[in-house]
Amino acid sequence: MATVTKVLRGGSLVTPEGVFAGDVVLEGQRIADVVPGGLDAAQLDGCEVFDVAGCWVFPGFIDAHTHMQCWTGMDWTADSFETGTRAAACGGTTTIVDYATQDRGMTLTQALDAWHERADGTCTANYAFHMAIADWNEHTRQEIDLMRDAGITSFKTYFAYDHLRLDDAQTMEVLEAIKPFDGILCVHCENGTLVNELQRRVFERGITGPEGHPLSRPDECEAEAIGRLMYLSHLTGARVNVVHCSTELGLEEVRAAREHGVRAMLETCPQYLLLDDTRYLERGEDGFAGAKYVMSPPLRKPTDVAALRRAVLAGEVDQISTDHCSFNLHGQKDRGRADFRKIPNGGPGVEHRPALVMTTFEDDLGPMEFCRLLSTGAAREFGMYPRKGALAAGSDADVCVWDPAARWTIGAATQHQAVDYTPYEGFEAHGRARLVFVGGELVARDGEPTGAKPGTYVARS
Amino acid sequence: MATVTKVLRGGSLVTPEGVFAGDVVLEGQRIADVVPGGLDAAQLDGCEVFDVAGCWVFPGFIDAHTHMQCWTGMDWTADSFETGTRAAACGGTTTIVDYATQDRGMTLTQALDAWHERADGTCTANYAFHMAIADWNEHTRQEIDLMRDAGITSFKTYFAYDHLRLDDAQTMEVLEAIKPFDGILCVHCENGTLVNELQRRVFERGITGPEGHPLSRPDECEAEAIGRLMYLSHLTGARVNVVHCSTELGLEEVRAAREHGVRAMLETCPQYLLLDDTRYLERGEDGFAGAKYVMSPPLRKPTDVAALRRAVLAGEVDQISTDHCSFNLHGQKDRGRADFRKIPNGGPGVEHRPALVMTTFEDDLGPMEFCRLLSTGAAREFGMYPRKGALAAGSDADVCVWDPAARWTIGAATQHQAVDYTPYEGFEAHGRARLVFVGGELVARDGEPTGAKPGTYVARS
Amino acid sequence: MATVTKVLRGGSLVTPEGVFAGDVVLEGQRIADVVPGGLDAAQLDGCEVFDVAGCWVFPGFIDAHTHMQCWTGMDWTADSFETGTRAAACGGTTTIVDYATQDRGMTLTQALDAWHERADGTCTANYAFHMAIADWNEHTRQEIDLMRDAGITSFKTYFAYDHLRLDDAQTMEVLEAIKPFDGILCVHCENGTLVNELQRRVFERGITGPEGHPLSRPDECEAEAIGRLMYLSHLTGARVNVVHCSTELGLEEVRAAREHGVRAMLETCPQYLLLDDTRYLERGEDGFAGAKYVMSPPLRKPTDVAALRRAVLAGEVDQISTDHCSFNLHGQKDRGRADFRKIPNGGPGVEHRPALVMTTFEDDLGPMEFCRLLSTGAAREFGMYPRKGALAAGSDADVCVWDPAARWTIGAATQHQAVDYTPYEGFEAHGRARLVFVGGELVARDGEPTGAKPGTYVARS
Amino acid sequence: MATVTKVLRGGSLVTPEGVFAGDVVLEGQRIADVVPGGLDAAQLDGCEVFDVAGCWVFPGFIDAHTHMQCWTGMDWTADSFETGTRAAACGGTTTIVDYATQDRGMTLTQALDAWHERADGTCTANYAFHMAIADWNEHTRQEIDLMRDAGITSFKTYFAYDHLRLDDAQTMEVLEAIKPFDGILCVHCENGTLVNELQRRVFERGITGPEGHPLSRPDECEAEAIGRLMYLSHLTGARVNVVHCSTELGLEEVRAAREHGVRAMLETCPQYLLLDDTRYLERGEDGFAGAKYVMSPPLRKPTDVAALRRAVLAGEVDQISTDHCSFNLHGQKDRGRADFRKIPNGGPGVEHRPALVMTTFEDDLGPMEFCRLLSTGAAREFGMYPRKGALAAGSDADVCVWDPAARWTIGAATQHQAVDYTPYEGFEAHGRARLVFVGGELVARDGEPTGAKPGTYVARS
Repeated sequence: MATVTKVLRGGSLVTPEGVFAGDVVLEGQRIADVVPGGLDAAQLDGCEVFDVAGCWVFPGFIDAHTHMQCWTGMDWTADSFETGTRAAACGGTTTIVDYATQDRGMTLTQALDAWHERADGTCTANYAFHMAIADWNEHTRQEIDLMRDAGITSFKTYFAYDHLRLDDAQTMEVLEAIKPFDGILCVHCENGTLVNELQRRVFERGITGPEGHPLSRPDECEAEAIGRLMYLSHLTGARVNVVHCSTELGLEEVRAAREHGVRAMLETCPQYLLLDDTRYLERGEDGFAGAKYVMSPPLRKPTDVAALRRAVLAGEVDQISTDHCSFNLHGQKDRGRADFRKIPNGGPGVEHRPALVMTTFEDDLGPMEFCRLLSTGAAREFGMYPRKGALAAGSDADVCVWDPAARWTIGAATQHQAVDYTPYEGFEAHGRARLVFVGGELVARDGEPTGAKPGTYVARS
Repeated sequence: MATVTKVLRGGSLVTPEGVFAGDVVLEGQRIADVVPGGLDAAQLDGCEVFDVAGCWVFPGFIDAHTHMQCWTGMDWTADSFETGTRAAACGGTTTIVDYATQDRGMTLTQALDAWHERADGTCTANYAFHMAIADWNEHTRQEIDLMRDAGITSFKTYFAYDHLRLDDAQTMEVLEAIKPFDGILCVHCENGTLVNELQRRVFERGITGPEGHPLSRPDECEAEAIGRLMYLSHLTGARVNVVHCSTELGLEEVRAAREHGVRAMLETCPQYLLLDDTRYLERGEDGFAGAKYVMSPPLRKPTDVAALRRAVLAGEVDQISTDHCSFNLHGQKDRGRADFRKIPNGGPGVEHRPALVMTTFEDDLGPMEFCRLLSTGAAREFGMYPRKGALAAGSDADVCVWDPAARWTIGAATQHQAVDYTPYEGFEAHGRARLVFVGGELVARDGEPTGAKPGTYVARS
Repeated sequence: MATVTKVLRGGSLVTPEGVFAGDVVLEGQRIADVVPGGLDAAQLDGCEVFDVAGCWVFPGFIDAHTHMQCWTGMDWTADSFETGTRAAACGGTTTIVDYATQDRGMTLTQALDAWHERADGTCTANYAFHMAIADWNEHTRQEIDLMRDAGITSFKTYFAYDHLRLDDAQTMEVLEAIKPFDGILCVHCENGTLVNELQRRVFERGITGPEGHPLSRPDECEAEAIGRLMYLSHLTGARVNVVHCSTELGLEEVRAAREHGVRAMLETCPQYLLLDDTRYLERGEDGFAGAKYVMSPPLRKPTDVAALRRAVLAGEVDQISTDHCSFNLHGQKDRGRADFRKIPNGGPGVEHRPALVMTTFEDDLGPMEFCRLLSTGAAREFGMYPRKGALAAGSDADVCVWDPAARWTIGAATQHQAVDYTPYEGFEAHGRARLVFVGGELVARDGEPTGAKPGTYVARS
Repeated sequence: MATVTKVLRGGSLVTPEGVFAGDVVLEGQRIADVVPGGLDAAQLDGCEVFDVAGCWVFPGFIDAHTHMQCWTGMDWTADSFETGTRAAACGGTTTIVDYATQDRGMTLTQALDAWHERADGTCTANYAFHMAIADWNEHTRQEIDLMRDAGITSFKTYFAYDHLRLDDAQTMEVLEAIKPFDGILCVHCENGTLVNELQRRVFERGITGPEGHPLSRPDECEAEAIGRLMYLSHLTGARVNVVHCSTELGLEEVRAAREHGVRAMLETCPQYLLLDDTRYLERGEDGFAGAKYVMSPPLRKPTDVAALRRAVLAGEVDQISTDHCSFNLHGQKDRGRADFRKIPNGGPGVEHRPALVMTTFEDDLGPMEFCRLLSTGAAREFGMYPRKGALAAGSDADVCVWDPAARWTIGAATQHQAVDYTPYEGFEAHGRARLVFVGGELVARDGEPTGAKPGTYVARS
């Protein structure tokens, strides 16, 4: 197949060596060259040239935490891999790492097969998988190496949710099982025992609406679980990733552990950096708008938001992912109208993350930091670097051309996420993905998809 | 009853106002007066005068952590209340706070009755009770107030030992139940889930001797549990007491929590301040000498010992108690000869604590600090001050006259603890209790009992 | 000569004793009186009265770091002493301390003579000199005392720039030479060996534009050199001044050294407190706008900016000076269009410093702190206090009357600096110098010069 | 060849899993088994059994810093590989890592060949090589991969000594060259420029004897160079090893850098943990005894010794090596009798390190910590683990059976180091190597060699 060489001309290139002016050359599925200063005009002959003056050219963004087309114990998520990766690409994200999830009674292999079946051939952006383990036994242990051979080097366990969680000894065993190949264990850190009891109480006190959700998951539940995980990592020496960290107390646990040499990665999400728990009091037309924000962990206090922002600025956060796990407000979330415990937990975000993050921190961070937080951090941590996460010759031709001067408004009416709301309705975004390439193909332009679906599975190492 | 006034004449009095020379006057069961400079000679007429020149006169010492005459899941402890409080008194301790312990299926009232039955009428030193809760249910919750009325303001729960431990939600409920009267929850902090698994592994690996004990209880198991307790206290606002803290990691958890305003008391024991884990390699005559040191938590690394000593010097430790829980090496501990998991956990210490502590820190601490660590701290924390813990007019006539110049050697052959060894065999002690009064009666002289048994139950408030 | 008494009436006086309302009386070249509450109306007869109600009255500001009319190895700076001190005065600065600079092969005396020749008789503001040493030999050493006699108590050396830098042993010898009279050594802290190599690489990599400048001077180059200087001060006991500190890493070196008792002063500049390295990506009309910001050290990351601001608020910064070293963008800087290494290093600032600093920190600092940062700090450090830097009877009549309510916009079109751009184009300034007196003469009003040139040389001690 | 199975019976085994009682089985050149509890008596048939009751059984010790048979710019070291490794083995050290050193004008390959020629076939203990680089050029850079293929993964550069040292840019390049395979750069951290100048001065002041040595190398010279190295590591991301750290100031540099994520290893030596700079004042018979201690860095103040000991206890030191570099006092060191600068720098130690360290820290550290400091730390850092540094099935049969109860006195008269003095003359050692095996062969017993020379080259990875 004859592919036309594409040239992204005249942008500010965000490369591992720093930011400089120049051109990026895409040939087939790879970045053929990154040219400081730019090509000579004569070299452009026969190339498809994209003028990207005034734009930052990033390696495609990576969202390392999504749940597409997934049964979460209550309902299926609203986004399929098809709609979810299309929305991702419109926002500038060229790779997602989705949580394939073993149910009790299922093998890891079955879970992986199911995820491939759902994703393969339908995706606009690329996709990799973490593997969430809910049924730890001798057979599961033996499958770990199979998973690794299949390109899965990161796993997940839960300290909460009765149908998913492992106990401390089992979690220790998972860590020991993945340590030989320096795998990472991503952990949902909430103390499920406490949450169950607190949910019961809050409901029995007559608090049945969405505001009961944060009341039953206080910050100590997260921080305690993070502290426990830090000790399991300390004990085993294995790497861990604290996902969706939402509290200052939790942050302090990670800091303290790092001072003891614990190799703990830290992820937070836009919702914990932009929204706070006053949102649960929103009523909306039908008195149930607070349900939009029912996710776990819940939105926190403004002081937690401020602490997490400082952590981002201090370089303590390794990646900002979304925990995209969308449910429609009407037809899904509203099944919990009489009991907040029955509201499916989760919200959308995969499409808007880059704009949310770059707008929020526009006065404080530069393109190198955005690149680390949105792309390179996840690529390095999860074994995709420099194939992904680097604007460099030889890397995959996943590129996001970002126009920092664009201005637009986030809204459910115009989004591509297949869900009937967005928590960021009305947010004035500064900057937008002007051009997004996946494997060298243009998949989105100015926030709208082109229809191409070049997304492929990313085996990691 | 006509009681003779006793005068302790010419000592260095360790009082709440400081240390000064003077006399102490005992009348009946109370301290009648503390006289700076001393009485006039004429005032001594008709009094029984004890010349205590050269000695420090302390309020009687308090050991806030003992297990006398107690079934521990494997065996009965070797010391009864009779032998245990006699030994305590010989060392200068005039009050113990023993852990009355509810078994599963028993009520708190039954446990308290059983403890009174064992202790009443047999004791040389006074005794109070904490109440350990192993069966948390609605009935138990209602008994909390009964216990308080019976003079019990401190309780205990376990995070380890399958027959005793409560889960996190139950522990939270206990804290909530005692918070209204500002009770204290003492907690055995080890992660039982991890310990069980590690014990299994170590044993299956073929390590069956006493050295398997520390290998199956690494310091992370303690520190994790302390961290968890700190969050439960943070969540409920209730006071907690970290008993027998043995590790630097655990210490750091308490420090961090205190910075967040958690009201955490800290107890450590002489064994964690004097002995380290190389003891488990002792062989002795029959190759089993390491079993002497099988207690939980286990002895730790020298760096932990050093860290705890620094914490004592820094004023971070509220009280040094013994966790006295004696088992004979022959006939009890040796039942675990083929399997370290069957060695009854615990060791003696109630008799030697004052000498061990004052010898160890003789270059670094003075009598005021010793008084706080050995007496006043526990009296204040556990609702006995100033009746106990203070050398002051009106306080109980529990007094320890301490001769700092005495020199003697600790040994099983000469001890009064009813057990066939001491972990401190051969320790050269600096200082000894010359005279010990309980309720105004002389109960010990130069380390030997007089035979009096004036000990009474101490109801606390 | 009959001079008219001037009275600055009804201002908020920023004096060494604090801020209070009152009048300032100028007679000839001295402040005759500072009158809390103000003079009686009758006392104003025959005086020239300036109504300064609503204004802060400061001792004239001091800019302790300028390079006027100086050959920098590539070109002459754009501002002469005449234009530079006029611009300074328009902004409220009444004294500059300029770096007289010895070239290799020249004596210190020759350098000093040259600087006097350039400055004497042309200046609106006063001027003192530091002496920069580029040729350290036995003769130079002997000239140190001559310099001191000529009123020069501060010196400078460089760790970078091949035509200027001394090695570590020479720097140590300079420190030893000035220590007997407690002189200060100001040091340009960048590791020249590393910078040379990195410049070569970046250029060879094809990065030829202004963005190559920061890439070749990473923050480690500054921090390493600061650390080295700290040890030389530790070794010799001599005082040092870290000029134009631009990085958080460098700041931490100064902090650590101060904890060891090193007497290190700390200077930073408005550019490092307001601008960050995203500026190098500015293109402007001719694609070369990034060259405006080519100065050494370069602009840094937003996190460095934030760290330096925190240091200002924490009182760790002794003075904010400008490192004013102006070059025209057209005709000077653009000689480096094809090679960033040939862009003359430096930028203008002497006119705008007070407005930049007071606008930036208006929510956080008050007039006393501004006085210390902009005037008193430098006066004390460099041997001019209380002649300069104090609003007090007997001090020189250098005064800046500051109107905090004024609003204006910084721009090249309206500035008095003799250079064709300003890095702060469009900056909305809060506050402006309403009246500026040098030696009792009014030299500027509302940012415009009066034409007077009363500036004289300030010999220091 | 039929090898007899050897059984070390009944020791306290210091294994990666902890310390426990048991037997170690050696078959050929490997450890065949580590048996907790010990073999059944029947299994001993046909084995050569060594009763090691009462002893600690360690993996053989590793001395990661020696200079055998090396020209040091002034003279050849006194010990050859033959005498040096024999002495090492007598003390319990079964592997040395020697510094092969490139001279200017020589290739790395030539240096490596020379070292093999000197060592191969002569050694009692095993030997690996670091490669010291003194001539950095394009050819040297290309040889780095050859070295790696030859089993050399650690390199060395010098910041002092004119015939060896590289400048900062060259050192940066070396770090970049070894980073791709995560190599380690060991660096001699002293500021050579300052040392040269200070030596000149001290000598010109008339201080010509050994006491001039420490005067010309103050602690700032070391700490500054360590700080510089930390930034080069920070800049490049490569791993570094600070060898022979001797000062508290230097220690603080490493701590600060580690907090910034710098991957800095830390080595110190027995001489810096036991001896202080008052030794330079020793006169001895001929007034020149201070020359025994002329090594670089020099012995330091008692406060530095105390700080380094605390660092050992705090776990901050990765390995204690010797920098063994022996010269005879008579015939070598005394050539510098008239000028301390001509005294060959260095001293012996390879034989006595284990006894010195274990005696010094006997009250504070246990066998696990000794194992890490003397063996495992170096094995892990330098790519030999678990082949070396682990008492585990499958590891090399390099074993040191240590009798902690032995008492003996270090002295030149009885040592095996081929040098006419020891800095530790008269030191009362607690503990001694009772049996030492290299590759399964007994090479020393109770401090005396058996004559076997099984030492082989250790290629690292």
